[in-house]
Amino acid sequence: MDGLMMDFPLILPTILRRAETIFGDREIVSRQPDRSLHRYTYADMARRARRLAAALTALGLRPGDRVGTFCWNHHQHLEAYFGIPLFGGVLHTLNLRLHPDDVAAIITHAEDRAILVDAVLLPIFEKIWPKVAVEHLIVIGDGPLPEGAIAYENLLASADPEGFVPPEIREQQAAAMCYSSGTTGRAKGVLYSHRAIVLHSLVSATADAVGLREADAVMPVVPMFHVNAWGLPFTGTLVGAKQVLPGPFLNPPSLIDLIERERVTITAGVPTVWLGVLQHLDQNPGAHDVSSLARMIVGGQAAPEGMIRAYQERHGIDVVHAWGMTEMSPLGTITYVPSSRRDAPAEEQYRYRAKQGRPLPLVEIRARGPEGLVPWDGKTMGELEVRGPAVARAYYNNPEGDTQFTNDGWFRTGDIVTIDPLGYIEITDRTKDVIKSGGEWISSIALENALMAHPAVAEAAVIAAAHPKWLERPVAVVVLKEGHTATETELLAHLAPHFAKWWLPDAVLFVDEIPRTSTGKFLKSALREQYRDVLRASAIPPAPEHAASVETSEG
Amino acid sequence: MDGLMMDFPLILPTILRRAETIFGDREIVSRQPDRSLHRYTYADMARRARRLAAALTALGLRPGDRVGTFCWNHHQHLEAYFGIPLFGGVLHTLNLRLHPDDVAAIITHAEDRAILVDAVLLPIFEKIWPKVAVEHLIVIGDGPLPEGAIAYENLLASADPEGFVPPEIREQQAAAMCYSSGTTGRAKGVLYSHRAIVLHSLVSATADAVGLREADAVMPVVPMFHVNAWGLPFTGTLVGAKQVLPGPFLNPPSLIDLIERERVTITAGVPTVWLGVLQHLDQNPGAHDVSSLARMIVGGQAAPEGMIRAYQERHGIDVVHAWGMTEMSPLGTITYVPSSRRDAPAEEQYRYRAKQGRPLPLVEIRARGPEGLVPWDGKTMGELEVRGPAVARAYYNNPEGDTQFTNDGWFRTGDIVTIDPLGYIEITDRTKDVIKSGGEWISSIALENALMAHPAVAEAAVIAAAHPKWLERPVAVVVLKEGHTATETELLAHLAPHFAKWWLPDAVLFVDEIPRTSTGKFLKSALREQYRDVLRASAIPPAPEHAASVETSEG
Repeated sequence: MDGLMMDFPLILPTILRRAETIFGDREIVSRQPDRSLHRYTYADMARRARRLAAALTALGLRPGDRVGTFCWNHHQHLEAYFGIPLFGGVLHTLNLRLHPDDVAAIITHAEDRAILVDAVLLPIFEKIWPKVAVEHLIVIGDGPLPEGAIAYENLLASADPEGFVPPEIREQQAAAMCYSSGTTGRAKGVLYSHRAIVLHSLVSATADAVGLREADAVMPVVPMFHVNAWGLPFTGTLVGAKQVLPGPFLNPPSLIDLIERERVTITAGVPTVWLGVLQHLDQNPGAHDVSSLARMIVGGQAAPEGMIRAYQERHGIDVVHAWGMTEMSPLGTITYVPSSRRDAPAEEQYRYRAKQGRPLPLVEIRARGPEGLVPWDGKTMGELEVRGPAVARAYYNNPEGDTQFTNDGWFRTGDIVTIDPLGYIEITDRTKDVIKSGGEWISSIALENALMAHPAVAEAAVIAAAHPKWLERPVAVVVLKEGHTATETELLAHLAPHFAKWWLPDAVLFVDEIPRTSTGKFLKSALREQYRDVLRASAIPPAPEHAASVETSEG
Repeated sequence: MDGLMMDFPLILPTILRRAETIFGDREIVSRQPDRSLHRYTYADMARRARRLAAALTALGLRPGDRVGTFCWNHHQHLEAYFGIPLFGGVLHTLNLRLHPDDVAAIITHAEDRAILVDAVLLPIFEKIWPKVAVEHLIVIGDGPLPEGAIAYENLLASADPEGFVPPEIREQQAAAMCYSSGTTGRAKGVLYSHRAIVLHSLVSATADAVGLREADAVMPVVPMFHVNAWGLPFTGTLVGAKQVLPGPFLNPPSLIDLIERERVTITAGVPTVWLGVLQHLDQNPGAHDVSSLARMIVGGQAAPEGMIRAYQERHGIDVVHAWGMTEMSPLGTITYVPSSRRDAPAEEQYRYRAKQGRPLPLVEIRARGPEGLVPWDGKTMGELEVRGPAVARAYYNNPEGDTQFTNDGWFRTGDIVTIDPLGYIEITDRTKDVIKSGGEWISSIALENALMAHPAVAEAAVIAAAHPKWLERPVAVVVLKEGHTATETELLAHLAPHFAKWWLPDAVLFVDEIPRTSTGKFLKSALREQYRDVLRASAIPPAPEHAASVETSEG
């Protein structure tokens, strides 16, 4: 027997209509390329988003068509977030930081029919444009137009919003698309449905998640070209929060200025951004009033516990650690200290806050080790698998990606985690980086962190090297700080108290530099290639026997 | 083109699994009939809910079958909230406060196949049981069993949870049912789907709605037999909040004791309960520590502004005004001061807090007056219409209720409201009580409130009386305070500065008593019957002309 409830679809036009009718007076503020601030309201935004939908339809675009955006965080990009799905189109955010050839390949794979690009980004985009076959180029902002391009403002002005009847939209219909920027292999497209985005926005607005409120002023520093800026533009519109969009200026002084001027209450971004802001604040004590800022959502990579502590203790700002993936719309877990530990010593509370956190509502988790699903004991490592209504079930036109989905309906994240009895996950490695030594797993990240805690070590990467008996064994690649020295024996002795004997690297290699990706992460694939056979060639004694009785000091 | 997201249904077993796996240690505390406190965890609750599902299935119940509950707020009732939907059954909460004949009629209409009843409620239930044809009677709590009944604990003990495979559940499937307790006409059944309850729980958990968190201790004083206790048992389980259930003891000292002892942070119920608690707190200053209590959700009828103010100013407790209906799962609107008015004078802020509030996410509103949809000007009255995924589209087996649903998919609430430019609704009347004078509407409630502000007036009800020219005109029925006197002329003069001339009652009738419903509301239908023709019989001069130019001081 079915319930007798209305058949009310979960679609983005509902969120836009809500903002327009009840939050019509709330502001959206953007930093423009000339550094001035543009400000208008949700009512203005909704009006222009409808004009955009009408104009794109008049250009010949139809429901299901992909429209790319190559833009910073600003109000016109927000208009595209709602205007493109409004006519049934698919908002396809393009990553400005990828190589032009990769962007061109992604546009071609997605078959974008139109692209919105910031005028200030044309110097980059002009390297992409000749390589793609896209019908319409629409330029946001002032400046000379490339041949055949349309100015965004002229496009909006040409629209006939009265004559435009938005098509009916089903909740399963595609609304947006983002390619995951894996460090290896071809980028894979994730196609978000209206339903997934609406549910993600609701989940994100719950008090134990991001918990955005109408009274908040939210500043997404995480780019709108990267997994929908963690969904904040949608969630902010759902709840009527003021939105503060930093445009192209992501340097600490510019961000701090916006926080101060616009009384930002919550912001979000990757740790590197916040490390820079922290440094600037600490170097200019008393110079800035950031007292409006209550919370900072940090994700993308692990937030160092020291940073969480510094913001809390020196600036009274709550750093909330979150984890997610392009394939998850993207939020998966978020960390708050569990209520049972609110009276625990500060040290223990910071330990919780440095974990990636607990699953959000409608996100389910499990982890699989070499012998099946692992217990939730906070110690046993396994690859994290997730499922939920905002999790991908396949990649767009990419059957080779199918191996990331299990037969029983879960997505394999590629992250190695432990899960504790309260459901807190802690990422210990990536599947491709974990060292599989004789059927047991060794966390490269745990060893790296311990090595980098040594006073002489500037950087350390731990990788798997081939081993005749154990198949893989850890090898550490270390850069020493200038003017410091340390020997292999010293570093191994430094590690010994903290790990089981069989976790200790079989070799420590001293180098001048560790290769990095464009986003600053260690390029471990290059290291693995270079040092794969280092143990065969060396005279290093065999690793100690693995023994179940050997205690690790982990967890 | 459809999105490529997982087909993950929005169903209650997901919420239960979440609580069991990540909030397994959080407590559920119930006051038992002997006044002792029973406490266990979500892990315990989930285990017993599964046993209940298995046992009911073993009794022969099948997906779609209705199972009634005739219970106070306690942990076994919570087990039924999840255990019944878990096997595909429909939780049918029965209102303890209705007349036994009405309960019997509702059970018969719903065709309940089994009923769970509290042992302490058997004296009432025994008047119902002979009038219904229900197969299984299950008694919760100690005491002698009626002939043929099963003890709840024996039923759980008999279950084989290992052997029980829960059926697959679709999100549109019915999970729960509640009959609306209209003061007139046959009670009408609302059939909630799993999807509606999950969405309602998520919406309720958003920070600007109820905003429940894992760290909260929530005490629903609103009965679990009444529209799912405003959804709090579901929302509490979704977020892992501690639940404090008051059992049969709803008197102020008992509630205050629970708040104090269990450190309740948020509670919910009708204004009368909170007026009693307020009086008790004020009469015993310093005797109770209710400092844990941050918020109180008040609904069911309008919360007096004086009460909101008293709790805020004397006890630091935020009274949050909400409005909803059985047909809406039930939350529809909630009131927070809009951020643009946070710096306004306290008086203006209290005015916002005394309104019913703004629609929650996924709830859409509009109001229809005599001439169509009314503007959102905070002045024009119209009947509120709503829609959303947790709003009924029909009543269960009751075609005569169809008139409450519009052809274009909205539910007519029967409440007369104004809507202001920010989307705040204020209920000014019920459709059956509003006075329709010559095509214009006059709010009976506004006149009553103004009359009751006169020092000599104890109670006042304003009703429509038949009128030859205007069809209806207002008549006031007034009870004076003992030892006070006032004339019709005095009372009309008291009203005159506050209303348009044509709003003023055509007659003021002094009576000793105003008839009331069982829940203490004025029984206006009886008054209307009695005084319908009072204007025809009287020598009262005709009402002043209606004139659009006459300003009201309303709004």
